[in-house]
Amino acid sequence: MIKKILIANRGEIALRVIRACREMGIGSVAVYSQADADSMHVKLADEAYCVGKPRSGDSYLKIDQIIAAAEVAGVDAIHPGYGFLAENAHFNEVCRSSGFEFIGPSPQAMEKLGDKNTARAMAIANNVPVVPGSDGLINDNAEAIEVAKKIGYPVLIKATAGGGGKGMRVAEDEKSLATAVSQARTEAEAAFGNGGVYLERYVGSPRHVEVQVIADSHGNVCHLFERDCSVQRRHQKLIEEAPSPSLPEDRRIEICEAAVRMIRGAEYTNAATVEFIVDADNNFYFIEVNARIQVEHPVTEMITGIDLIKEQIRVAAGEKLSFAQEDVKCEGAAIECRINAEDPEKNFQPNPGRIETMFVPGGLGVRFDSHVYAGYTVPPYYDSMIGKLIVHRPTRAEAIATMRRALREMQVEGICTTASFHDKVLQHPEFIEGRHDTKFVERQFLK
Amino acid sequence: MIKKILIANRGEIALRVIRACREMGIGSVAVYSQADADSMHVKLADEAYCVGKPRSGDSYLKIDQIIAAAEVAGVDAIHPGYGFLAENAHFNEVCRSSGFEFIGPSPQAMEKLGDKNTARAMAIANNVPVVPGSDGLINDNAEAIEVAKKIGYPVLIKATAGGGGKGMRVAEDEKSLATAVSQARTEAEAAFGNGGVYLERYVGSPRHVEVQVIADSHGNVCHLFERDCSVQRRHQKLIEEAPSPSLPEDRRIEICEAAVRMIRGAEYTNAATVEFIVDADNNFYFIEVNARIQVEHPVTEMITGIDLIKEQIRVAAGEKLSFAQEDVKCEGAAIECRINAEDPEKNFQPNPGRIETMFVPGGLGVRFDSHVYAGYTVPPYYDSMIGKLIVHRPTRAEAIATMRRALREMQVEGICTTASFHDKVLQHPEFIEGRHDTKFVERQFLK
Repeated sequence: MIKKILIANRGEIALRVIRACREMGIGSVAVYSQADADSMHVKLADEAYCVGKPRSGDSYLKIDQIIAAAEVAGVDAIHPGYGFLAENAHFNEVCRSSGFEFIGPSPQAMEKLGDKNTARAMAIANNVPVVPGSDGLINDNAEAIEVAKKIGYPVLIKATAGGGGKGMRVAEDEKSLATAVSQARTEAEAAFGNGGVYLERYVGSPRHVEVQVIADSHGNVCHLFERDCSVQRRHQKLIEEAPSPSLPEDRRIEICEAAVRMIRGAEYTNAATVEFIVDADNNFYFIEVNARIQVEHPVTEMITGIDLIKEQIRVAAGEKLSFAQEDVKCEGAAIECRINAEDPEKNFQPNPGRIETMFVPGGLGVRFDSHVYAGYTVPPYYDSMIGKLIVHRPTRAEAIATMRRALREMQVEGICTTASFHDKVLQHPEFIEGRHDTKFVERQFLK
Repeated sequence: MIKKILIANRGEIALRVIRACREMGIGSVAVYSQADADSMHVKLADEAYCVGKPRSGDSYLKIDQIIAAAEVAGVDAIHPGYGFLAENAHFNEVCRSSGFEFIGPSPQAMEKLGDKNTARAMAIANNVPVVPGSDGLINDNAEAIEVAKKIGYPVLIKATAGGGGKGMRVAEDEKSLATAVSQARTEAEAAFGNGGVYLERYVGSPRHVEVQVIADSHGNVCHLFERDCSVQRRHQKLIEEAPSPSLPEDRRIEICEAAVRMIRGAEYTNAATVEFIVDADNNFYFIEVNARIQVEHPVTEMITGIDLIKEQIRVAAGEKLSFAQEDVKCEGAAIECRINAEDPEKNFQPNPGRIETMFVPGGLGVRFDSHVYAGYTVPPYYDSMIGKLIVHRPTRAEAIATMRRALREMQVEGICTTASFHDKVLQHPEFIEGRHDTKFVERQFLK
C-alpha cells in the first residue's frame, strides 16, 4: 500500500501528481528549490521541503537531499515526474535501496532502454520495425562505409548514449561519412562519456508518432493509443495530439501493437512511451522508449478518460491495471499546446518574470494544467513551460476551433508566451490537413 | 445565417455564449452596466456596449437600450442567457419585431409555458404525469375544499403566475385551507398582478430531476438525459449532476421521453428544461418548463459531449439539430458546484469585493466557467455566482473525489466563497449514497 508520495520534481507535473494523490487519498510531499517557494506545487502539497539552491544541479538533481526529504517525511514512494532524475537509473536504484517504491520501471529496464543501441536490438528481437541501419555499434570507418552502402544515403550517425540531437550527424554521401562519424563520436564522448555510434537510414521529413503503454507487474500490458507530436522546434515538441491525424486505421493498430510487443519484451512495468518516426508512405520505425510519464500525457487521458498518474501509482503499488485492452476506447480528438514563457518574436528567447494579470481559459472541452497564477514570478532557472493548454472535442476540426478560442482567451500579462505562435500554427493548411511533419515549423515559420 | 450575436446578459453565461460564437466564427457583442466594465465577458467580446447604470433595472433589463445596442452593432440575433430578460415574452417579441432572431422559443410558446396552470394542462394533454391537483384554477373556497378532499392533505396552493416560492402555501388540513388560499392569492396579486391559484398534492421531500431537451424548427426533438438538482438552499440550486444518482434506468428513460412529449406537444423550438419532482417511490411529476438555457447546462454537455449553446444558435438559424436521439450518449458522471461570493459561515450573506489572488483548478476532468480573475472586483448588484466548477469522470465516486480535490485547489483570496461549504456537502453520506432530496441541505447543514 502506498500512503504517501514524494514528488521529485517541480511545476505542473509535480502539481499533476499531487492532484492524483489527493483524489486517491494519498498524502503528497513536494520538494522545491529556493526559487520555487511560491509555486503552486509547493502550496498545494500536504508537506513541502526545500532541497537547495535555485540551479537544478543544486536542488532537483540532488539525490541525497531528495532522499533525505523522503526519509524525514516518511513517504512510501517517490514519483520522478519527467526530466530531472526521471530516467536516471542510479536515482531509481537509490530510491529502492532506501526503502522507497520508485513509481516507474525497474532500474534494469530503465538502463537497458536508455541505451539506444540496446533498445534497437530489443526492438528487432520483438519484431518491432527499426530504421534500416548497422547491426549494433560501428567499429571503424571501413565498417561505416560498408554499412552505409547497404542501407543507402543519406545516412544518420547516432550516438548510442545520445539525446536532444547531440552526437547526431547526417552524411549525404561516402565522401562526408568519415568526418561525420568522427564528429559524432567526439561530441558524444564529450557529452555522455560514451563515444559509441551506429548508423541508420536518414528519414528526411518524418512525422513523430508515439504510443502510450502501461504495464503492471502481473504481466498485463496495454496501449492507450498513439499521439502525434510532429509540431516541433529544434526537437522540442510544441503541439501534441491524439489520435494521429494522418495514420490510416490499420497502421494505427499495427503501431500500437508493436509498442506493446516492445514493452512486453523488455519486461517493463509502469508507464512508457514508445516513440516512432513515420515516413511519407506510413511506414513506422522505432526510435526509443521514454521510460517515464511524458509532458504530453494529457491528450491520451482526454481521449481515453484514463488517469495515467493514478494508474502509475496503482501499478507501482503492485496492483493490476484497472482496465483491460478492450476497455480502452479512443473518443474524439485532443490537442495540447505547450505554453512557454518565451518571446516568439525574438527567436523564442526565454522570458521569465512576474505574471501581473492572468485569465485562465474555461468552457467546454478545455483543460489547463499549470502551477502559475497572477502575482507569481516565473524563475529563470528551469524549462520555460508555464502550462499546458489541452482541449478535447468530438472531432479534430472542433478541437482546433476550441484550441484557437482558448488561446485567444488566455490572458497573461507581464511576460511573453507562445500562445500567439500556437494560434498561427493551428491556422496553417498543412496542420489543418494533418500533412505536417517534424520539419513543418522550421519550414513554415522560422525562415 | 447568423453572423453576429448580441448577448443580453452578463458574467459567466455571457462569456459562455461568446466562446461558442468564437468557435463558430460568429461575431460577438457584449452589453454591460457601468459596474461590469472589467468583467471578462466585456473584454473577450468582439464589441461591447454600455447599456446603463449598475442596477439591473437600469441596464440588463432595459429593453430599449439593448435593442439600440443591437442596432448599432448590426447583429443578426440576440442570445438572452438565463435570468434578466431570458423568459420575458415581450422582450422576445420586441427582438423579433426589430429584425433580430431571438435565440430561444417563440414568444407564444414562452408565454404559454410561463403560465404554470396552462403548462400543467399541456402536460396532462401530452400524457406527462403531474402532481394530482385541481383541474385548472380554483374559483372559491368551496371548490378548494372539495378538490383538497379528493387529492388528500397536505395540499400545496400555487399561484399560476408564481416563481421563487412566491404565492405558494401548504395547507395541512381543511381548517387551514381557506386562510392559505387567500394568503397565496394576495401574495400573487401583489407580486405578479395575477391572483389565480390552483391546488396540488404536497410532495414533502422530493428530489428535483430535470430533463434537457432541444428542438429544431423541422420537427426534431431530442432529450440530452436528465440532471439531478436536489442540493438546494431556499429553492436555489447549489450542486447539480448528471445522470441522476437515484433514478432506476427504466424511470430515466420514462422521464426523458415524457419531457420530449411535453416539448413536442408545445410546438417548442430551441433549448428547454422540463423540471420534475420525484417522490420516494420514484414517481415523477411535472413542475414546469424553463424556456431558456440553464445555469447547470454544463453537466449535460460533459456527459454528452454536445455543445448546447452552439446547438441553440444553429436551431435559431433554422438549421436542423446536428444529431439524432440515438447519437446522444450518456458517458460517465458530471457534477457542478456553483461558486458564489457568499459567506457560508454568515448565513450565505453576499460577499462582493475585490479578488486579490486566485488560482483556478485544473487537471483531468475539471472545467471552470467564470468571468472573474485576480484583480477583478465582484460588484454587489447582481447574483452572487462568480463561477461554476464542473467535473466529469467515468464514475460518480470518481467525480466526487475530483470535485473535492478541485474545490480544495481553488484559491480565492479577498472575498469569501461557498467552496468550503460544497466540500462539506460532498462528504455527507446522504449525498455520497445519492439519497438526498431538496430538503437535504436545510436538514443537515442549516440547523
